[in-house]
Amino acid sequence: MSVQTKATIASFGGKLLKLAHNATTTNCEMGFNLYLPPQTTINALHKVPLIIYLAGLTCTGDNGAEKGFFQHAASQKGIAILYPDTSPRGLKIEGEDDSYDFGSGAGFYVDATREPWSKGYKMYSYITSELPKTVFENFKEIDGERVSIFGHSMGGHGALTLFLRNPGKYKSVSAFAPIANPINCDWGKRAFEGYFGEENKEKWAEHDATELVKKWKGEPLDILIDVGTADNFYKQGQLLPENFVNAAEGKGKVNVRWQDGYDHSYFTMATFADDHINHAARYLLEKA
Amino acid sequence: MSVQTKATIASFGGKLLKLAHNATTTNCEMGFNLYLPPQTTINALHKVPLIIYLAGLTCTGDNGAEKGFFQHAASQKGIAILYPDTSPRGLKIEGEDDSYDFGSGAGFYVDATREPWSKGYKMYSYITSELPKTVFENFKEIDGERVSIFGHSMGGHGALTLFLRNPGKYKSVSAFAPIANPINCDWGKRAFEGYFGEENKEKWAEHDATELVKKWKGEPLDILIDVGTADNFYKQGQLLPENFVNAAEGKGKVNVRWQDGYDHSYFTMATFADDHINHAARYLLEKA
Repeated sequence: MSVQTKATIASFGGKLLKLAHNATTTNCEMGFNLYLPPQTTINALHKVPLIIYLAGLTCTGDNGAEKGFFQHAASQKGIAILYPDTSPRGLKIEGEDDSYDFGSGAGFYVDATREPWSKGYKMYSYITSELPKTVFENFKEIDGERVSIFGHSMGGHGALTLFLRNPGKYKSVSAFAPIANPINCDWGKRAFEGYFGEENKEKWAEHDATELVKKWKGEPLDILIDVGTADNFYKQGQLLPENFVNAAEGKGKVNVRWQDGYDHSYFTMATFADDHINHAARYLLEKA
Repeated sequence: MSVQTKATIASFGGKLLKLAHNATTTNCEMGFNLYLPPQTTINALHKVPLIIYLAGLTCTGDNGAEKGFFQHAASQKGIAILYPDTSPRGLKIEGEDDSYDFGSGAGFYVDATREPWSKGYKMYSYITSELPKTVFENFKEIDGERVSIFGHSMGGHGALTLFLRNPGKYKSVSAFAPIANPINCDWGKRAFEGYFGEENKEKWAEHDATELVKKWKGEPLDILIDVGTADNFYKQGQLLPENFVNAAEGKGKVNVRWQDGYDHSYFTMATFADDHINHAARYLLEKA
């Protein structure tokens, strides 16, 4: 469970650490970034909560840290941010690097059951268990009892499904342009067929936010979702947030904000970054 | 003077335009980005001031727009941002793309006098004249009488020298980790030898911020400069801000802030972006 520090970068009064560890769930070295807000350096005994940012297709842990501007509000609020990678790397599975939407960079936050992907494409276990355990062991300034999650696109799917599958594990969830009903869109169908097999439709439903929210029996939901009206992937039917909203009827608040003219890019996330950190802060700090 | 719009991206309530035009000074198509703050779309008759961001070695107009976080405060204050490229592109001069610190991506904001670079490496004329003229003609919402300038590293050198060579042209100037005395550092010597020739030392001095500030006879200076104490290029003697500060003695205020632990990267700029926009805003809005 040891972690190697590749770089320490000052950012918004705190530190962005570029880290790596040998992960057993994914069978390879995994890089990730961790932002420690200034509150942790000012007082080493002060424990800060954590928010996990799950990135979208093609990304690594770097994209959000460089272009999301999440450190801005996290610094003010005193929240650490964990930026994991989006898949195992270099497993040498045939075809692993051939597509932007399957294999490397496209782990979809599931545990693959189908060979050969089941060898290391276990991003569900990695994100929900191995990575946070490693982080909490190595960074005592982080409070493992106060964790929220959010994400973008494929990472929005990850955030919603991890939250809904694990009631109480995460204090809050929010998403930018999430793939909200993957069993009914091309990206999701391709990934779930590849990682679970065509026949295993039960598994598909277990990782579909819209199917999961129908069965939600936890506390009333309070989910913030931003979708841009100029998001081409929304227009292509890859995101389907309406399906999620309809399925969540009666389960609490799903606040989908249709952001006029905004696209699927990190420019959108930078613009609304503070809102998502502040949404989490209400649960991590005020209500905790 | 026509401008081609390649993309329009929503950002912080305004629009980031990805633009290109055929530039005569540089003899090629030049890409650039222009951020129009929300104030311009709310009221088309409302003219906004402009700040020009000059980027560093290897960069294009994209780096600052994606990673600098400058749109955050510019949006609140109502200031447009112009993000030019750092050199001509594709002139097919032998060796043009061989080095990160000379030729393409490294125009140093000078007009080369030496063959073959004098064919198109005219970034001084491009930034001070052709580009702003093109922008003001095509974007009537920008007030050409209220312009500030700032930049990073090579772009910090550009911002300081363009400001000091043209008293009154820019309302304010600031810089991140500027190459403040290029005639005395490796980067600057290599560039000035290449663009001006070894013998032409008078030209060298005309584009050296430290030499220029000695001769400053304009209004008392008020310059904001951030330098990180973990900046490797500072440690290597490429920046030499102390020389600039000493040379500026008696010419007004040069506020060098030594940012503890910060490096040469865009993470530093994102952290202090608001301060630089606000510095310009005092001159572009309050004192204008």
